[in-house]
Amino acid sequence: MLATGLRKGLAKQKCVLYIERFGLNAGISTGFPGVPRSKKKVFIAHGPQADEPDSLIVRFPADQPLVLDSGAAIAPLQIAYQTYGSLNEARSNAVLVCHALTGDQHVANENPVTGKPGWWETLIGPGRIIDTDRYFVICCNVVGGCLGSTGPASLNPATGKPYALDLPVVTIRDMVRAQAMLIDHLGIDSLFAVVGGSMGGMQVLEWASTYRDRVFAAMPIATAAKHSAQNIAFHEVGRQAIMADPAWAGGRYREQAQRPEKGLAVARMAAHITYLSEPALQRKFGRKLQDRAAPTFSFDADFQVESYLRYQGSSFVERFDANSYLYLTRAMDYFDLAADHGGILAKAFAGTKTRFCVVSFTSDWLFPTADSRALVHALNAAGALVSFVEIVSDKGHDAFLLEEPEFFATLRGFVMAAAKARGLA
Amino acid sequence: MLATGLRKGLAKQKCVLYIERFGLNAGISTGFPGVPRSKKKVFIAHGPQADEPDSLIVRFPADQPLVLDSGAAIAPLQIAYQTYGSLNEARSNAVLVCHALTGDQHVANENPVTGKPGWWETLIGPGRIIDTDRYFVICCNVVGGCLGSTGPASLNPATGKPYALDLPVVTIRDMVRAQAMLIDHLGIDSLFAVVGGSMGGMQVLEWASTYRDRVFAAMPIATAAKHSAQNIAFHEVGRQAIMADPAWAGGRYREQAQRPEKGLAVARMAAHITYLSEPALQRKFGRKLQDRAAPTFSFDADFQVESYLRYQGSSFVERFDANSYLYLTRAMDYFDLAADHGGILAKAFAGTKTRFCVVSFTSDWLFPTADSRALVHALNAAGALVSFVEIVSDKGHDAFLLEEPEFFATLRGFVMAAAKARGLA
Repeated sequence: MLATGLRKGLAKQKCVLYIERFGLNAGISTGFPGVPRSKKKVFIAHGPQADEPDSLIVRFPADQPLVLDSGAAIAPLQIAYQTYGSLNEARSNAVLVCHALTGDQHVANENPVTGKPGWWETLIGPGRIIDTDRYFVICCNVVGGCLGSTGPASLNPATGKPYALDLPVVTIRDMVRAQAMLIDHLGIDSLFAVVGGSMGGMQVLEWASTYRDRVFAAMPIATAAKHSAQNIAFHEVGRQAIMADPAWAGGRYREQAQRPEKGLAVARMAAHITYLSEPALQRKFGRKLQDRAAPTFSFDADFQVESYLRYQGSSFVERFDANSYLYLTRAMDYFDLAADHGGILAKAFAGTKTRFCVVSFTSDWLFPTADSRALVHALNAAGALVSFVEIVSDKGHDAFLLEEPEFFATLRGFVMAAAKARGLA
Repeated sequence: MLATGLRKGLAKQKCVLYIERFGLNAGISTGFPGVPRSKKKVFIAHGPQADEPDSLIVRFPADQPLVLDSGAAIAPLQIAYQTYGSLNEARSNAVLVCHALTGDQHVANENPVTGKPGWWETLIGPGRIIDTDRYFVICCNVVGGCLGSTGPASLNPATGKPYALDLPVVTIRDMVRAQAMLIDHLGIDSLFAVVGGSMGGMQVLEWASTYRDRVFAAMPIATAAKHSAQNIAFHEVGRQAIMADPAWAGGRYREQAQRPEKGLAVARMAAHITYLSEPALQRKFGRKLQDRAAPTFSFDADFQVESYLRYQGSSFVERFDANSYLYLTRAMDYFDLAADHGGILAKAFAGTKTRFCVVSFTSDWLFPTADSRALVHALNAAGALVSFVEIVSDKGHDAFLLEEPEFFATLRGFVMAAAKARGLA
């Protein structure tokens, strides 16, 4: 491997404090085979995460291209990732966590952009369900993302300018191919588990199909083997909202020192509604007014739900790149695992020895239980070891990111049983 | 009454042909008490419908203001409307049809803007379910609309410019108050029936509450007694999409000879998804590609559902005013009939003698059956005569505008029974 691994960012004062508070020190300070353990710490307070992320990075040189489903290639390729815990001698305890559309690699540490806890810190850490005292947890930014893996915000070495729409369109399988390059680079042959929700769940399925001999256990959560017409439709609304913003400038907004903030905010607002459920919105907001006793008879955010949505929109543009939003929604739209196997989903898993646990949530209308059932039927048809749990929750699609005791218990049971079977318990 | 009634537009060549084809001639050529029957025909090919609509109009002078829920008033007030059939001697056969958010008064004649048939022409006409040989059907453009009733696109007599956001915000009750002024003007004391779906259904409920002695029969379809948090959220997305468009120009786009086309198209696209159901989208489009054999790996409209949505967006901006979209969505958001009656919905109908038929559709997730059930419970609590039908359909909210035999049969039965009770059969 000519690639290099650099440790950055997590050395930032804020992060270190955070890590100590949560006792994650052992986790993040551990190196891995083939990569230097202690690189010079680089402090980037508000640097561009796209090229110089506050993460470990690996750069694959031009002679190791990522060949894409479209036939195009990305080279050189950069992958930004975080790890927690240590790889064991047998290299058999690696857990790959796959993030969702607007997630990132900061799954169990303070996010360097938002300052918020990692998006699954409730699940991952020492003594937690995915116990970093026992497992070596890896999470990388997907290709097409904006937190350090090559994406439309990255500099195109051929031009010295951001790729923007010159980056080839990537698919879920392309993301997973890039992850496999990282896993190879880390010297890991077989992953103990691959876990993820939503777009992360699509990656889990793609791993279990494309690299079926390298995945011992797979947990696809709140996801589907193909993106539905309604979901494509919502994504198209988001893309059109971004492209309608004159500040988008054909994707070349960075060169003009501007951002399509309004368009991206509208895209996020529309998407955010789909992540929640009607009962959750009703319970949380109902028709409650925002800091006022009576309607103003205006277009102000009279209702709390309006105020909440506007906040979701405006805070999102601070942490996410509009072009990445285009690429990642497109990747999800294109996802159709059965189509890649002659239209028969079971063929995508033929001969699999992977243990599956499929999870859905009752109020998730973006990836409803019916999608998980279809997946489970296909896995059964392929003779796979599969369990399926539908969690009762009114929190909608977002439930997989929230405190859901039944979901936590399911994950705990699955990981423990798999660890026993793998000889890790 | 100082108001005047003018007949326009329907005299257009295309319309006349259409009317003859459908045998509606008797319907549209009939006048009504107090309004001259044959005004000079005015031909407006592509005139601004906001001020000079291809419709009958009544203008209420400044000393007959429409006093609004907000405390503000609109004066003078213009109402544009269509009628079909003749008012009988007893003035007891009038049916008021209330249109939905993006509907208009052209319920049973060719639409002068789009050239398409009226939006309920399948239901209304000679020999049809709402038989214009027997009933005098009235449909008016709502206040805040853009097809001739006073709305943000109308000229503000105080400035000579379009009102834009200087028009006070209107509510569903304000719309109904304006309709009552029209009904008074037409010399009608009591309506045989008030019928409408979605926002039209809200008007039906408001009629049955505010003017409960003037409504013999009421059919609220695919609607609710209050707008839900999720629905407010979707409306807010639409409004933000419009306002994010620089061409919106704070609402003063008409003065700058431009339109926020992109913003309004995005708003429409998002809303359109909510009018359909996931099964309908799946049945209609699924993941079918648009005029291509394989994905293009681009942001083109590869999928049919994308192409369809884009068309819905771009065609909508040709027929609808962006500011009207803001006003009418706001009116729906504010609708909460119980809140106007101490939080108890049954009180909104206390003492009612109106016959109700409440209709919902199984796949309507914008106004789900639960909303209709809540309404029916309140009507029962108020001791009202009420029947309730949930129609099995996979067509989503839009089902009320489509060919749904069970819905048609329900409407037919309800109208026939009510007519018998009213002595019209």
